[in-house]
Amino acid sequence: RIDPDRLWDSIMEMAKIGPGVAGGNNRQTLTDEDAEGRALFQKWCEDAGCTMGVDTMGNMFATRPGEDPDALPVYMGSHLDTQPTGGKYDGVLGVLGGLEAIRTMNDMGVKTKHPIVLTNWTNEEGTRFAPAMLASGVFAGKYAQDWAYDRVDAEGKKFGDELKRIGWVGDEEVGARKMHAMFELHIEQGPILEAEGKDIGVVTHGQGLNWLEVTIVGKESHTGSTPMHMRINAGRGLALITELVHEIAMKHQPNAVGAIGHIDVYPNSRNIIPGKVVCTVDFRSHLKEVIDAMIAEFDERALKLCADIGVEMSWEMVGTFDPPAFDEGCVEAVRNAAKELGYSHMDIVSGAGHDACWINEIYPTAMIMCPCVDGLSHNEAEEISKEWAQAGADVLLHAVLNTAEI
Amino acid sequence: RIDPDRLWDSIMEMAKIGPGVAGGNNRQTLTDEDAEGRALFQKWCEDAGCTMGVDTMGNMFATRPGEDPDALPVYMGSHLDTQPTGGKYDGVLGVLGGLEAIRTMNDMGVKTKHPIVLTNWTNEEGTRFAPAMLASGVFAGKYAQDWAYDRVDAEGKKFGDELKRIGWVGDEEVGARKMHAMFELHIEQGPILEAEGKDIGVVTHGQGLNWLEVTIVGKESHTGSTPMHMRINAGRGLALITELVHEIAMKHQPNAVGAIGHIDVYPNSRNIIPGKVVCTVDFRSHLKEVIDAMIAEFDERALKLCADIGVEMSWEMVGTFDPPAFDEGCVEAVRNAAKELGYSHMDIVSGAGHDACWINEIYPTAMIMCPCVDGLSHNEAEEISKEWAQAGADVLLHAVLNTAEI
Ligand SMILES: NC(=O)NCCC(=O)O
Ligand SMILES: NC(=O)NCCC(=O)O
Repeated sequence: RIDPDRLWDSIMEMAKIGPGVAGGNNRQTLTDEDAEGRALFQKWCEDAGCTMGVDTMGNMFATRPGEDPDALPVYMGSHLDTQPTGGKYDGVLGVLGGLEAIRTMNDMGVKTKHPIVLTNWTNEEGTRFAPAMLASGVFAGKYAQDWAYDRVDAEGKKFGDELKRIGWVGDEEVGARKMHAMFELHIEQGPILEAEGKDIGVVTHGQGLNWLEVTIVGKESHTGSTPMHMRINAGRGLALITELVHEIAMKHQPNAVGAIGHIDVYPNSRNIIPGKVVCTVDFRSHLKEVIDAMIAEFDERALKLCADIGVEMSWEMVGTFDPPAFDEGCVEAVRNAAKELGYSHMDIVSGAGHDACWINEIYPTAMIMCPCVDGLSHNEAEEISKEWAQAGADVLLHAVLNTAEI
Repeated sequence: RIDPDRLWDSIMEMAKIGPGVAGGNNRQTLTDEDAEGRALFQKWCEDAGCTMGVDTMGNMFATRPGEDPDALPVYMGSHLDTQPTGGKYDGVLGVLGGLEAIRTMNDMGVKTKHPIVLTNWTNEEGTRFAPAMLASGVFAGKYAQDWAYDRVDAEGKKFGDELKRIGWVGDEEVGARKMHAMFELHIEQGPILEAEGKDIGVVTHGQGLNWLEVTIVGKESHTGSTPMHMRINAGRGLALITELVHEIAMKHQPNAVGAIGHIDVYPNSRNIIPGKVVCTVDFRSHLKEVIDAMIAEFDERALKLCADIGVEMSWEMVGTFDPPAFDEGCVEAVRNAAKELGYSHMDIVSGAGHDACWINEIYPTAMIMCPCVDGLSHNEAEEISKEWAQAGADVLLHAVLNTAEI
């Protein structure tokens, strides 16, 4: 069993880097704070006897050697980057839970046939640079590295330039590594496990996602002197599609969710009728046909709603993945670990996207979830208990050990 | 009569300072570009034989002496600051039209009993620092100078610090000057004069304005893993009040207008349900009772709409003025000047707020309007013809000369 206090101390130590304004974290990808977090993680891994490899997307791989030189490694890990107003556990628990698993193996002198590799994936959150799970996506062959390097943040800075600036362009070819299996521990970010009173979620499936970047074009003009009938107000287009997205998702509830999270208004002046709005719609479901139906309905009705008030509307897909079904063998390893350890558990669908969703497309993968208070995440007030963290890391340790063959 | 080519050349010369991205201007108040525009204006005034005074709000006053040492000056002027995506004429025509009037007086060797003062008012637009017409408001005793100095822009910079930084804190006490009368020439910023085929709008009244800063509070949470029924989406509150504002204004049409121009979403991340939205509602009418009715209806219905979806809503007034009625004598001077010169003209209500609205509260004031293409303003594509500019400056010249007594 892992040491819950040591795990908790490491999480709190990491949380000191890029503190938020309300108790959480702002350690966005490829910022100076991200670099600082990476350096601390590297030091901890090396102190635990691992060697660190870094690929050209900045993905970090800490290896604990195995006994069979021909056996492919068993991977674990998640991400250390956070939302601008993120919590202390989203991603971090999966990385430092993996570190705690390695520390525990060391304490017990465990030897495994397969090497064990602990990963920190670059830019999981996708806030600074869309899409989310960018570097695991390149690893899995979903995106070209050049395309990823060209992603820009709100200030026009490129992913590739920022990766270089913080000094974390590694020398390994991205995606060159082969995996025997991969396990990701993560907080649920939803309310189900807590409500059901379960310690562990055995993640069998995930939601698929479609991110639509919508552009609404009206006509900038004076809020005071433009008569009502001459207005072409892009802000009204935003209002109509905000409610449309909600209505469409409600129709498919509980099998779908939908919302607009990011909104830019131009020129954003108190006395100018908005001439343009750019926003992102996030539609998700664990059923591919539901996602497709939502997009089709949105496309038809949003275009019509906007046309009716004279504004132009267009959209393009800026992020998409199909609902993943995790590997049955790996899922079973997680379920068995929870059983052996006596933790209460249930099967669950992941509401959020995770690096594990991309890796699952190329290697056997599964996820372990632990509850979070009130299902709250992507909020500085995100909270978990030490006991939940302990259960999650224990199950990760055992699932990995069983797969890596002691 | 004024020289239309000289006027037009000066307008085009000024437009080179702080060019926009689409043919207009971005010369926002208290920026380096504002300072550059001020310096050019000062040079032109001095070349025309005027002496420049500057008050502690940065308002500029160029004096052409009169013959009677006891006679109070006749003022004219407008503003040189622009919207972030503004046109070349909004404000500028009134300042440089006044300069052209002075140049014409010089050419003709005209002497007046009253001195003539040409003004450039600081921060008319109100985009960078709310409220609009800030410095004329301090001049008219509507706001305290200390309060004005403490206004902050989106980056948290203070008005007072920025005024100092660009070097335009003058030594005159603001509001110490007395006026015999004041005339402001401005483009209509609306479609009426062009539609009616009139050269000149004789502005008898203006719209009153209420700017409400609305704060909508929901709960930041994950767009993927938060079930629909647990969402408290501040973006939906924005959607509902956007449509409410439109509906309320439509009900009072053509006696009212209303829109939301400025919107900030927090934390503005693609995969976070908006936890907070701050936006500004702009309601206007030339009838005070209509403004009051709109505010009352908004307050009641917006609170209820937001409460129904679980979001909290509150608002505070960040800008307000009552509908002005301009001085009958000054209005008559404008009407007579248009008649004498043979320009077609009509009485009109100003849709926008102007520095003249504040000055009208303390001294006899009137405004002259000229058409603009498609009624478009607060847009880089704002356009007027040289003939319209000429008619406006001619009427300004004659109204001022008649009032300043040749
Ligand atoms: N786990 C997580 O929040 N990932 C970010 C991608 C997503 O929005 O689901
Ligand atoms: N003229 C003008 O656009 N003034 C700005 C104040 C307003 O919004 O009316």
